[in-house]
Amino acid sequence: MTSATIPKAHDLSRHLNQLSRSRVASPLKDIIKYMKEPGMISLAGGLPHPSFFPFGEMRAKAYTPDVDLRSSEEPSSTIELTIPKSATPSHKNTLSTALQYGSSYGSTSLSSFIREFTSRVMVPAYSDFEILLHSGNTDAWNKVVNILCESGDYVLVEEHTYPSAQALWAPMGCRGVPISIDKDGMVPEALELVLKNWDRTHSGVKRPHLLYIVPVGHNPSGATLTLERKKAIYRICVEYDIIICEDDAYYFLQFPPYVLPSQRKPQNVETESSDVPNQKSAFDGQAYIESLVPTFLSLDVQGRVIRLDTFSKTLGPGNRLGYFVCNPIFAERILRATEVTTQAPSGLSQAFVEELLVSWGIEGYLTWLAGLRDCYTTRRNWMCDIIAENFDLIPSPENFVDDVVAVRKDHGSTKNTVPFFSFSFPKGGMFAWIKIYLSGSTTYQVMKETSLSHEIATAKWAEAFWMDLIKEKVLLTPGSYYTPIIGLNERMPQEPDVAFFRLAFSFETREEMKIGIARMTSVFERWW
Amino acid sequence: MTSATIPKAHDLSRHLNQLSRSRVASPLKDIIKYMKEPGMISLAGGLPHPSFFPFGEMRAKAYTPDVDLRSSEEPSSTIELTIPKSATPSHKNTLSTALQYGSSYGSTSLSSFIREFTSRVMVPAYSDFEILLHSGNTDAWNKVVNILCESGDYVLVEEHTYPSAQALWAPMGCRGVPISIDKDGMVPEALELVLKNWDRTHSGVKRPHLLYIVPVGHNPSGATLTLERKKAIYRICVEYDIIICEDDAYYFLQFPPYVLPSQRKPQNVETESSDVPNQKSAFDGQAYIESLVPTFLSLDVQGRVIRLDTFSKTLGPGNRLGYFVCNPIFAERILRATEVTTQAPSGLSQAFVEELLVSWGIEGYLTWLAGLRDCYTTRRNWMCDIIAENFDLIPSPENFVDDVVAVRKDHGSTKNTVPFFSFSFPKGGMFAWIKIYLSGSTTYQVMKETSLSHEIATAKWAEAFWMDLIKEKVLLTPGSYYTPIIGLNERMPQEPDVAFFRLAFSFETREEMKIGIARMTSVFERWW
Repeated sequence: MTSATIPKAHDLSRHLNQLSRSRVASPLKDIIKYMKEPGMISLAGGLPHPSFFPFGEMRAKAYTPDVDLRSSEEPSSTIELTIPKSATPSHKNTLSTALQYGSSYGSTSLSSFIREFTSRVMVPAYSDFEILLHSGNTDAWNKVVNILCESGDYVLVEEHTYPSAQALWAPMGCRGVPISIDKDGMVPEALELVLKNWDRTHSGVKRPHLLYIVPVGHNPSGATLTLERKKAIYRICVEYDIIICEDDAYYFLQFPPYVLPSQRKPQNVETESSDVPNQKSAFDGQAYIESLVPTFLSLDVQGRVIRLDTFSKTLGPGNRLGYFVCNPIFAERILRATEVTTQAPSGLSQAFVEELLVSWGIEGYLTWLAGLRDCYTTRRNWMCDIIAENFDLIPSPENFVDDVVAVRKDHGSTKNTVPFFSFSFPKGGMFAWIKIYLSGSTTYQVMKETSLSHEIATAKWAEAFWMDLIKEKVLLTPGSYYTPIIGLNERMPQEPDVAFFRLAFSFETREEMKIGIARMTSVFERWW
Repeated sequence: MTSATIPKAHDLSRHLNQLSRSRVASPLKDIIKYMKEPGMISLAGGLPHPSFFPFGEMRAKAYTPDVDLRSSEEPSSTIELTIPKSATPSHKNTLSTALQYGSSYGSTSLSSFIREFTSRVMVPAYSDFEILLHSGNTDAWNKVVNILCESGDYVLVEEHTYPSAQALWAPMGCRGVPISIDKDGMVPEALELVLKNWDRTHSGVKRPHLLYIVPVGHNPSGATLTLERKKAIYRICVEYDIIICEDDAYYFLQFPPYVLPSQRKPQNVETESSDVPNQKSAFDGQAYIESLVPTFLSLDVQGRVIRLDTFSKTLGPGNRLGYFVCNPIFAERILRATEVTTQAPSGLSQAFVEELLVSWGIEGYLTWLAGLRDCYTTRRNWMCDIIAENFDLIPSPENFVDDVVAVRKDHGSTKNTVPFFSFSFPKGGMFAWIKIYLSGSTTYQVMKETSLSHEIATAKWAEAFWMDLIKEKVLLTPGSYYTPIIGLNERMPQEPDVAFFRLAFSFETREEMKIGIARMTSVFERWW
């Protein structure tokens, strides 16, 4: 589609809440306009003079984008980034600017880079999208909720949802509407059913108009939506006039399918440390882009997707830096909120990230992202391989909730098919998500008999099992943390007889994973 | 007072709003507790591995705290700060930590430095004060309002107040209660009168319980509260149960009194560029501290002061870094809000500021601050001297609103005593604030005759005067920007026959100030 035929965003201002509608532009905008007039002497701005900033120059040793991150050595291939105090012919980015008050849009040159990158990689389906820097996706989600939600609003969420996201809106009196997920993420039919029946099931209550979704490497379940599902969900959101907030921190970490060691073809069996090709061939940025499931943004012809992108998972969370891609009306309202809250992300973070990205170029940044993707693929493989070493993994039927069911490692016998847990091989992100079937646990049998309900027994069991894992010195994240809040002090009822845990493969070494999962295995074997 | 006799903060939780009361602690806190157990293998945290951060080392050339900032040369006396990727015996601060997710409290070591600094400089009057990092005072004020205010609340403000501060609460449905100020800042008797009469003047309306105040180098008026006034205001706030939010960005920029060139004793007449002693003698940190009016915090025996400190004016606004000093209950509630919004200030900003401050030490930081104070004193003197060169400044009677009245430069005659404006010599901060008396302006006479009211004529005049200044290429900030919002789309009625403008002396060079104020003078002369 050429830009001439790409539509502009619809006017979706009807979604803005009272708070956001009430914000007015700062009168200082006029001041800034006049400041820029040639020859103007400005006694208007309250800016400290840059000579009073105590730093004369900053430098960073940064990696080249093609470094081998899987090597345990500190990369030797580096580039030197310099941020001088004042502009020089070779340096436009300066400390005089980075340490000064900055625009709430963020650095113009960093925004330009991001705009070009977004146009190339996400190919937004409407023409007047805006880029607005933010201080990380948590900050960004706060701003989205604060322009769109009124107290009492219902927010559509995955049936296991990111705790910090709901810890934001729950105290505002909002409630979650959990939508079923499976190994491929949110189930479109489930979303449609909730919306179609809303007026019947929630008579007199305003229908939800905001969907919060983590489409790739879902936290906690690790699921990645297929393009087909994204299209279906987008279509439903158009029909029911829903704004989609696409929290896509893991977008660039989309993995090729996992193949069990026993099923790998000879050419797939590689060195133990990795099953991702190691040889360096010419990097093909376009091929990497095409390996990624397109974003909701790329399907969005109306501007109803607010995309949250962040450098947290790609360049380091401590930068507290990311960006919105959204329609101009929402961007302007978010800007107004930014001016009176965070003002701008750290100028140092912006300057270093900009220097790095501009020095790498778009192709370089894609090289880096593809390299990271390979590293996390390796880590995903480590974890799945280690689970496969500790359990027998039985492939599930096509429509089963998960890829495989884990049973006791058999050592030759075929009797032990009581399931411990099922899980799916993550296609993105940092997490595996196991669903434990309690029916085979002897402890659970006892707990059921002494508890008032299966639900209570299930919760007691999960807590006791978690504490026993901790005693064995392996820490998982309890699935209950991700249970949607559906009302004041009320969580979604939990499914009885099953318990969920999240396992991260992002941080620990392979050796640590081996030890950790062996410890977990021993607890399973003891409890069944 | 020894620490044994210093009281603990009162329980002021009755001031927390519904939103803040509804926030719950993140369950992830439990996870973090267990992560720290020795031998634990954690598959719980979703942290990226630090080897995936693309920076290998960062360095900064920083100034020594005693550099001569008034020199036009880039300081040659520098220190090299290094932040390595991983800890070394000489470096505890690392990029592996700075670029990672961090605590919402902020860096422990930076907090410790700040705690020690605060104890020494502010000497808080209660023992269990907390230090909590934030992302600049605008972010901080947002958090204060969001834990304390309900929609419809009245907030006590100075009768000219910082626009961004009210742009935050006005859309929330809050309203300002303007309290008179004069050249010494807020008038305690005016505050007391408003509170004493509240139930009569605002029958059935909740009394304000939050005071927003800029006690030093007030923005826009440049006024600095005396200790006597601070004590009186604190006493009133105790009596009426008011929380004081002390936004003290300019605290370290408190100047010695300004003396007109014509009144300087011979030993005060120095080089043109400065009337602050230039000779380097041994720096006395305690003397510098004692030259500062004590803070509200230092008077606060109950924990009802929320102090907002920022590095914006001292180390550069682009760091987006500052800190709260407040009672533990408020700190905990702010922490909960921080976890789901900004999470933490930029790790890079924290790391560089920490390296700098630890390397300087407390005495070094005081040296830097005193040096900055001298620089801004010089700038204040530049501006006042230049105004004195362009106008005749007639000292005002003791109880007049301002120190001097500016009239047309007389060149020998004594007839021209029609006042242009009055102003006070700033004792702190970055701003001078002029009050223009329109009665002598010929244009104003015409406008009054053609306008419905004096108020409308005054507003029209101020706008036209401002536009004429802009035509002459000098930009001031109109005083109307600072008018308190007292209701929905309603501002405090403006005093007729006078107009205010703010002049910043923080940024432009002396030469630019000379040109700018000469331009301003020509406009005055033309309009009178």
